[in-house]
Amino acid sequence: MDLQFKISKDFIEEIQEFVSNDDRGAILNAISTLHEADIAEILDVVSMEEAKYIFRLLEDENASDVLVELEEDVRVKFLDALSAKEIAEQMDNMDSDDAADIMAEMSEEKQEEVISQIEDPQQAIDIAALMQYDEDTAGAIMGTELICVNENWTTDQCIEEMREQAENVQYIYTVYVVDNQKRLTGMLSLKSLLFAKKGTLVKDIYIENVRYVDSYESLEEVASMMKKYDFVALPVLNPDKILIGRITIDDVVDIIQEEAEKDYQMASGISDNVESSDSILALTRARLPWLIVGLIGGVLGAEVIGLFEEQLGDFPQIALFIPLIAAMAGNVGVQSSAIVVQGIASNNIDLTGISGRLLKELGVALLNGIVCSIIILLFIFLVKGDLTLGLTVSLSLLAVIIFAGIFGTLIPLLLHKRNIDPALATGPFITTTNDVIGLFLYLYIGYLFYF
Amino acid sequence: MDLQFKISKDFIEEIQEFVSNDDRGAILNAISTLHEADIAEILDVVSMEEAKYIFRLLEDENASDVLVELEEDVRVKFLDALSAKEIAEQMDNMDSDDAADIMAEMSEEKQEEVISQIEDPQQAIDIAALMQYDEDTAGAIMGTELICVNENWTTDQCIEEMREQAENVQYIYTVYVVDNQKRLTGMLSLKSLLFAKKGTLVKDIYIENVRYVDSYESLEEVASMMKKYDFVALPVLNPDKILIGRITIDDVVDIIQEEAEKDYQMASGISDNVESSDSILALTRARLPWLIVGLIGGVLGAEVIGLFEEQLGDFPQIALFIPLIAAMAGNVGVQSSAIVVQGIASNNIDLTGISGRLLKELGVALLNGIVCSIIILLFIFLVKGDLTLGLTVSLSLLAVIIFAGIFGTLIPLLLHKRNIDPALATGPFITTTNDVIGLFLYLYIGYLFYF
Repeated sequence: MDLQFKISKDFIEEIQEFVSNDDRGAILNAISTLHEADIAEILDVVSMEEAKYIFRLLEDENASDVLVELEEDVRVKFLDALSAKEIAEQMDNMDSDDAADIMAEMSEEKQEEVISQIEDPQQAIDIAALMQYDEDTAGAIMGTELICVNENWTTDQCIEEMREQAENVQYIYTVYVVDNQKRLTGMLSLKSLLFAKKGTLVKDIYIENVRYVDSYESLEEVASMMKKYDFVALPVLNPDKILIGRITIDDVVDIIQEEAEKDYQMASGISDNVESSDSILALTRARLPWLIVGLIGGVLGAEVIGLFEEQLGDFPQIALFIPLIAAMAGNVGVQSSAIVVQGIASNNIDLTGISGRLLKELGVALLNGIVCSIIILLFIFLVKGDLTLGLTVSLSLLAVIIFAGIFGTLIPLLLHKRNIDPALATGPFITTTNDVIGLFLYLYIGYLFYF
Repeated sequence: MDLQFKISKDFIEEIQEFVSNDDRGAILNAISTLHEADIAEILDVVSMEEAKYIFRLLEDENASDVLVELEEDVRVKFLDALSAKEIAEQMDNMDSDDAADIMAEMSEEKQEEVISQIEDPQQAIDIAALMQYDEDTAGAIMGTELICVNENWTTDQCIEEMREQAENVQYIYTVYVVDNQKRLTGMLSLKSLLFAKKGTLVKDIYIENVRYVDSYESLEEVASMMKKYDFVALPVLNPDKILIGRITIDDVVDIIQEEAEKDYQMASGISDNVESSDSILALTRARLPWLIVGLIGGVLGAEVIGLFEEQLGDFPQIALFIPLIAAMAGNVGVQSSAIVVQGIASNNIDLTGISGRLLKELGVALLNGIVCSIIILLFIFLVKGDLTLGLTVSLSLLAVIIFAGIFGTLIPLLLHKRNIDPALATGPFITTTNDVIGLFLYLYIGYLFYF
């Protein structure tokens, strides 16, 4: 099939028509070639009643995949509507990591009910174990479905054993090799297994020195490692070095994207991880905190201007360029902090050191500042014919750009050194502080020039 | 091995010491357990002479991987320093897609020299063919190394043929199935191949309906498809539906992250894709355009204030809250546009339609606006004891928040509808426009109140 399925209004309306006509055949026919991710997209947008109707038409294997692919807020409502037994049936078909994630979205009471109704006891144990891990650790996103062979086996024995294990595994990414104590010793490429001569021992063809993570390792570390080394799967060990699971790249892709998006949202002054499809209330709640910070900054700005109110009464032309100075202070701060935050995120910063970064930013700020100052000096002098004002604005603009650049660079670096997420600082704090201090610099320089 | 290798200053200094002592054994010993990505990180930070020294100690297989992993700007210098013959040797060992990418970084003259010196004629042809694709298409990032079997073969024949093909393929992600005309008809899971009975025909066990992309498809589409469907590899077809390559998830992870980072950079007013490690000049060039836009906005703001200069002379207290209004207009615009841009990036927007989005934003803006207005009204009235000023500021703040929210939502949606990247609008354009119009609203409302 070419390309992805693009959901259209017409298609949705057609499906809704089928549902209201109780035409099961037509629905199944319409969605038969769709991927589970596409079916989930449909359920995300139709009404809850319609979604349940369609969901119950799906085969078990399909249904559990669709459940995994649903948007979280839709799924929460869905789980409410399904009985514990229905959910347990789906969980029997899921990868343990997906099941554990979904389990975490239910009330404790319902969790217990569902766990007790899962048919496969091993699956129930795996899910319960996975739920013990902290949300942001490798353990929380690993799956327990993996193919694992003993280093002392022959390749024929391997294939025999793998046949059994593979029943629960959708894709074989890698075959892990363990010793008699189940400790990870290496991995076996399917390629070498496929091409090995009869009777070859695993220990003679496996790859040693395999990279792994501990189950309590942070997701950020896992994501950066998989990205750096181009892994499609990564084994997870417990503190005794025993192989307990594996993390696959598809789970990590989401984390990588979320990390990058989170930085962007924070820099835009959005504090929760919201999406455009969230409710008005959720969106407001995520946005109000920064606006309040901005408000406080504005009040402080008013106080700063108040200090110079008398002078402004005498020379009102100074007021004309207040917005320019404030805006430029904010812009420069956002730029310099964005570069530092992205540098930190991609591990690019540590080697240069703080003083190196600051010197570089000073260079950038000087260049940008000189260009901007000359432009505004020429403009005010030539167009307004006011040299004093031109000098005031251009000199304070230079000072403001340098200060804002240094400040925007320094704050994220200091936060990072104290292990605080530097993205916190990019939006509200840096812009607002730069605004206020920029204003003060401008008015103070104006004061020096005019008196 | 646990975790990723973290490069340290001490380690680098040690390596540099070894280089200056000409101690090859010590260098090879120090880097022997490192991944090529780690070795590349070392070469990225030492001097060019030291880097070349270390590079020439590496074995061929290693050296080509390190070359692929280098930072682009370091690699460009590196390629300059190596002879065409040396580069060609490395390219013989590379995946064709990596080789084509690196080839594109050289002058046309050097490209021809290198191509002519590549030993394996098929590799030279593949690289030259890949270089014909537009930078942002599936063809440009696909690799030609893949495992492909005929649907009429038996599984034993497959394994025999695959053994030969696999020599050039590092990981087998998927086995593709083609008909006699080399047209893609499906794929074969290694699992089913491994467990098939002797004599089974491929056509009896392969998976039909495999998703693919055309070679001219955009990278954005490829990335969104692989992410949505959790693919680790995706086949690429030419217009005759003949299988010509495959795209692997590790290449796409980089694209997904770059896309997210690009949106963030644009919103921060950084126009080129720069990194903190780039030169001062490159960083300045990427940042100056937005600052100039901000400057123009500031000048327009000055003009707006100029319209009301007389009134400001009579009631200078109005000037106090100019920065507050401008900052809030900018903040709200950045927030609302960020949500729309991310929604568009994740294909979340199209179903709601423009009017639905605008209504929602109106709701959010009203809520945020009312809360902020009440706060500022109470503050100015209770602390400053000035009800007229309080009403002026709070009413215009409400108007500005609503206007900025609607404007920040509408512009990216309209750009997207006209197939222009909506991220373009988020930073400079929306903030600056909101600043200027917000100022005008404020001063005009002030004018109405005071006269």
